[in-house]
Amino acid sequence: MRDRRHDILFEPVTIGPNTMRNRFFQAAHCSGAGSDPQTQTGTRWTDGGWAVVSTEYCLDSPDADDFPRLRPRPWDDGDARNLSFMTEEAHRFGALAAVELWHCGVLSAGMETRHVMPGVPQSPNADGGVITGADQMDRDDIRRVQQEYVQAALLAQKAGFDILTVAATSTADIPYTFLTPMFNRRTDGYGGLIENRTRFHRELFTMLKEAVGDDMTISFRIGIDTLGPSHGLRDAGIGLKGDGRAIIESLNDYVDMWDLNVRWFEWSEDAGPSRIHTENPQAPYMVPAKNYTDKPVINVGHVTNPDAMAEMIKTGHCDIIGAVRPSVADPFLPKKIDEGRYEDIREDIREDIGFSKSLPRFEMDGTPITCTQNATVGEGFHRAWYPEKFDKVTNVDNDVLVIGAGPAGMECARVLGERGFRNVHLVDASSEIGGSMKYIPDLPGLSEWRHFVDYQKIALDKLSNVTIILNKEMTPQDVLEYGASIVVVATGSRWAHDGMNGFTHAPVFGAGENLAHVRTPDDVMAGGSVGQKVVVYDADGYFMGAGIAERLLRDRKNVTYVTPFGKIAPFAAKTLEAPRLNRTLRELGLKIIDEHILTAVEPGTVSIAGERGGESTVEADTTIMVTQRNSRGELYSTLNADALALEAEGITALYRIGDCESPNIVAEALFAGDRPAASEVNGPNSSGCVRS
Amino acid sequence: MRDRRHDILFEPVTIGPNTMRNRFFQAAHCSGAGSDPQTQTGTRWTDGGWAVVSTEYCLDSPDADDFPRLRPRPWDDGDARNLSFMTEEAHRFGALAAVELWHCGVLSAGMETRHVMPGVPQSPNADGGVITGADQMDRDDIRRVQQEYVQAALLAQKAGFDILTVAATSTADIPYTFLTPMFNRRTDGYGGLIENRTRFHRELFTMLKEAVGDDMTISFRIGIDTLGPSHGLRDAGIGLKGDGRAIIESLNDYVDMWDLNVRWFEWSEDAGPSRIHTENPQAPYMVPAKNYTDKPVINVGHVTNPDAMAEMIKTGHCDIIGAVRPSVADPFLPKKIDEGRYEDIREDIREDIGFSKSLPRFEMDGTPITCTQNATVGEGFHRAWYPEKFDKVTNVDNDVLVIGAGPAGMECARVLGERGFRNVHLVDASSEIGGSMKYIPDLPGLSEWRHFVDYQKIALDKLSNVTIILNKEMTPQDVLEYGASIVVVATGSRWAHDGMNGFTHAPVFGAGENLAHVRTPDDVMAGGSVGQKVVVYDADGYFMGAGIAERLLRDRKNVTYVTPFGKIAPFAAKTLEAPRLNRTLRELGLKIIDEHILTAVEPGTVSIAGERGGESTVEADTTIMVTQRNSRGELYSTLNADALALEAEGITALYRIGDCESPNIVAEALFAGDRPAASEVNGPNSSGCVRS
Repeated sequence: MRDRRHDILFEPVTIGPNTMRNRFFQAAHCSGAGSDPQTQTGTRWTDGGWAVVSTEYCLDSPDADDFPRLRPRPWDDGDARNLSFMTEEAHRFGALAAVELWHCGVLSAGMETRHVMPGVPQSPNADGGVITGADQMDRDDIRRVQQEYVQAALLAQKAGFDILTVAATSTADIPYTFLTPMFNRRTDGYGGLIENRTRFHRELFTMLKEAVGDDMTISFRIGIDTLGPSHGLRDAGIGLKGDGRAIIESLNDYVDMWDLNVRWFEWSEDAGPSRIHTENPQAPYMVPAKNYTDKPVINVGHVTNPDAMAEMIKTGHCDIIGAVRPSVADPFLPKKIDEGRYEDIREDIREDIGFSKSLPRFEMDGTPITCTQNATVGEGFHRAWYPEKFDKVTNVDNDVLVIGAGPAGMECARVLGERGFRNVHLVDASSEIGGSMKYIPDLPGLSEWRHFVDYQKIALDKLSNVTIILNKEMTPQDVLEYGASIVVVATGSRWAHDGMNGFTHAPVFGAGENLAHVRTPDDVMAGGSVGQKVVVYDADGYFMGAGIAERLLRDRKNVTYVTPFGKIAPFAAKTLEAPRLNRTLRELGLKIIDEHILTAVEPGTVSIAGERGGESTVEADTTIMVTQRNSRGELYSTLNADALALEAEGITALYRIGDCESPNIVAEALFAGDRPAASEVNGPNSSGCVRS
Repeated sequence: MRDRRHDILFEPVTIGPNTMRNRFFQAAHCSGAGSDPQTQTGTRWTDGGWAVVSTEYCLDSPDADDFPRLRPRPWDDGDARNLSFMTEEAHRFGALAAVELWHCGVLSAGMETRHVMPGVPQSPNADGGVITGADQMDRDDIRRVQQEYVQAALLAQKAGFDILTVAATSTADIPYTFLTPMFNRRTDGYGGLIENRTRFHRELFTMLKEAVGDDMTISFRIGIDTLGPSHGLRDAGIGLKGDGRAIIESLNDYVDMWDLNVRWFEWSEDAGPSRIHTENPQAPYMVPAKNYTDKPVINVGHVTNPDAMAEMIKTGHCDIIGAVRPSVADPFLPKKIDEGRYEDIREDIREDIGFSKSLPRFEMDGTPITCTQNATVGEGFHRAWYPEKFDKVTNVDNDVLVIGAGPAGMECARVLGERGFRNVHLVDASSEIGGSMKYIPDLPGLSEWRHFVDYQKIALDKLSNVTIILNKEMTPQDVLEYGASIVVVATGSRWAHDGMNGFTHAPVFGAGENLAHVRTPDDVMAGGSVGQKVVVYDADGYFMGAGIAERLLRDRKNVTYVTPFGKIAPFAAKTLEAPRLNRTLRELGLKIIDEHILTAVEPGTVSIAGERGGESTVEADTTIMVTQRNSRGELYSTLNADALALEAEGITALYRIGDCESPNIVAEALFAGDRPAASEVNGPNSSGCVRS
């Protein structure tokens, strides 16, 4: 039963010509699904209880060429037909469907069309990736761009969308550059005073209203404060109480609702992961902003806690709860709150590579979305995976043994349990489940990652057919004699002591196990002693090397960070953590030696070499090897090598999943956990000896 | 008439079951065309005189998931049908068609399939882009991968290909990692001694021969020397006289021909641009290598000069001239040599963004190929552009005025001339044609870029209908009164003196024109005085800032390089120049201050600021602003604003092309030059006032 304090979240909201059945709005976010009708975000999760589901940003015309990123293109009748799949699904479950239109302008390079991008001023490309630029639009160009919005809107209406969102979501897209003094240095009727800088939008909303008539809600999504100066420059962006307020007041009569947020010019500061933000950091801006308008306001605020959501409504922070990452981590969030199933909510941890965990791998060349919490995201169509729905297996009496309770093993046991196997045993050698996710939240700034294991614990605890057995190391003989007919090996990986790495593909001379002066992250996090002078050798490049360095710096160690990469933790750029991480580590006094490899380690000193020679030494009481992880693959190999023994013991299927096959990020371990569990154990291969 | 010294280049060569009609082989290279039958590399240029044209590398199975790069996928009958378009075109012009099969292994991340990549050892991903890895293949996995090659080969045969190239072209693909001791640390029958390390290949070639029978030539493309130690480690790669020779001898009986090259582990050192290599740097390796085999040898050696080619054959360097970039810059290279049209050859300059000019924009997320010399590359299908074929216009008596003889203007005048206009006048304010390409070759290491203007000069000189008029600055009134009915404005761009840039979108305080202590690249290259202490402010990030810095360092100036970017000339990474450029500049004593903007400039000193504050000053007699280029757009704007005057003077079409519309790289300026010239002037819009 739902807590009555949360009733307010289920009140209807009138948004122009439409009414939301509750206050939950699954807002636009990059999913990398393009116009693929069935993988388009939200399509499958219209049954999660949302009042609205939205497309990701759509390119409003071929002129808005965002190549190589794949986005929906509502350009012709074929596109309308594709996108109508999503609107029909939404309507079938009582939800409204929203479409977000965007014109990249100077943010994109026209790499597919080779068109010169239309810009507010002429300026270099703002994406930072290529040397191109946009030219300043004249009045005809402006009219053409507005007309492209209208065409796309008419097509979206044809596809059945109810809500039309015009996005000013990036600091350099066309609608935003008109608004921002930093970009807009025009001297004609579209520049200067705020009524000029909002002219493009007034004209656009008028044209849209005329075109789509009275059926569609028109929403404007915009950052109303750019959070202060950037690069030491004052007054370059938008301040809520000045231009922010003026923009709202100037355009209020032209829209049916507002989709408001705050944004820094540095993207990581507004879209950043949990290392940077705690929950709902936008309150100080949203409460005054809402006072400037009488129209309904939606805010996307990284909130998963229903108490906080109810508070947001009550305090006048917003009228509608926008959800992006929380909706990916748990597509059934509104339904679970509605039904009072609070402990079932899979809380977003806003992390992991590919841009902040549960957003798509946007920074990785537009790869489709993945998630650290929800392995089924993006797999609804191709693999027919659903977050909360499980086909029951037909071979329920095939008892299952899962060895290793890290991310892959926990997820696998959970899904196998949901699928109805009579007996699923999840066995782990340690005294708690979680694998590496037991200690990763102890790294500075990563405490929210605890949600990951918490969710699995609660979910496994509810499954009476899943038994967790701790403190048990399994030998091959133990497995053979266990009595299970399906065996899943998920023994994970461990950090290499010998310095093997992806640069030299060789060990580091003098490094190895059982040396007091050589440690790995596993050792450090398990409490292994570390001297005062430390070298962290990071040939891995993701969060671990930097995380260990920060932890040791905070313990007042003297830390030198040696890396073959050109900078600290380069892959942290893909989670938007890099800028802040760099600043923090430098402020804490980290000494950085980049573009060097470690050639040898001995007590008291390490030897390093530059890319082409140039050897030197660094003093080190302890050297922490963050070079690569090695699979703990022995158990699987031994079992797999003896087909006769497996057969003799009645083991009909043997799988290997997660890091013990190949060390990877958590999202992929989770995915690997779902893979055999979601389909393959009951598929045509399930009677054979199948590798994952 | 062909020079008789070059007759040797037109001798036939027997390659297994097939015979090449001459020694010219358009070798595989990334074009980004994927399986698109009509844009696939070489398809349109089978009439250029090549004996063989090849696909780009093909992914041999869904397991070889190279997402997001788009490559041909010979996986099913639909693919065979697509690819047969290319083989039919080749055969129609008497050429053979080659297909190159590749398995990325640990180089790729399986981002589309989410498969664990098969590896020789287990190791982290070698592409440096993402945290994933490959698992060590067991014997079943090896057999599966070999079988995937066979399936792809059978499909290629069905598509009509004559030559099957197995590529070991990247230091971490599957065939190469088996060969290299650095990667191959296996202790089974596939590791250790050279006969073990070549086992995979012997088995593979045997299987392929068995499958495709006696019709197809089998070629092995491999680097037989890795050019010495990398990262201070000895003996990690392959040396020609040791493993290189042993590999050739071990596999010689299994292949019909060899496609040999040398390669460094650092890619830029073997595929690098002209800044790094002079012509044909591989001779010292190829001559001995050819002695180890009795099979025909092809070598891709950056050679465009037919004398050097003939010498390569005579000296036993190779039997077949492989061409990649020269074939893109001039697809009619063999035909021109054959016909003795030596001065018509468009020589490759191996440069410009997107990976070495005339290769595809491989490093830019797999964008389709472009070229600084040949604007038609990749446009053969969509735009129906041909490098050496020009449809005659029907409006020959519409006289044309092209204003500005930079890359866009020269190219436009040339193509308009080829298309048969009665009168094309190319007018420039300076005393020579070339625009910025007049002085860019004076930057250190860029002297090969002179080919660009040289080619245009010769080509324009041959066109009797094109008149070049120098030392003439055109006013709007001059243009109106000129008597042309088609006007093309190509007035280019100039570097900003005021420090406007894509980071702050604001000028730098104190900067501006006519200040002795503030210079731009235009000023410096025109001989403007520069003091002893210099600050180069690079907010552009491509070759100009670093090039000016290097030039001044070589003039023994004291140079401090300030940049908002995180490193020197980040876009030079996309042309593979970055590693060597970095080393050179550091060796020359460049002082680097990265992640800082210039906030003010005054005589003797500049002020700089870190990303979030932290201000300081640097002494500077002269500050060079390399921040952004501004279009010289005034002439076009003035003309375009007065439709009545245009009409009164009989100007029926007004275009604007290249940097004067939006500053860009040379390849795009060239493309812009072709755009109106190749089609639009004769199209439906040619009677109106049309913008490019």
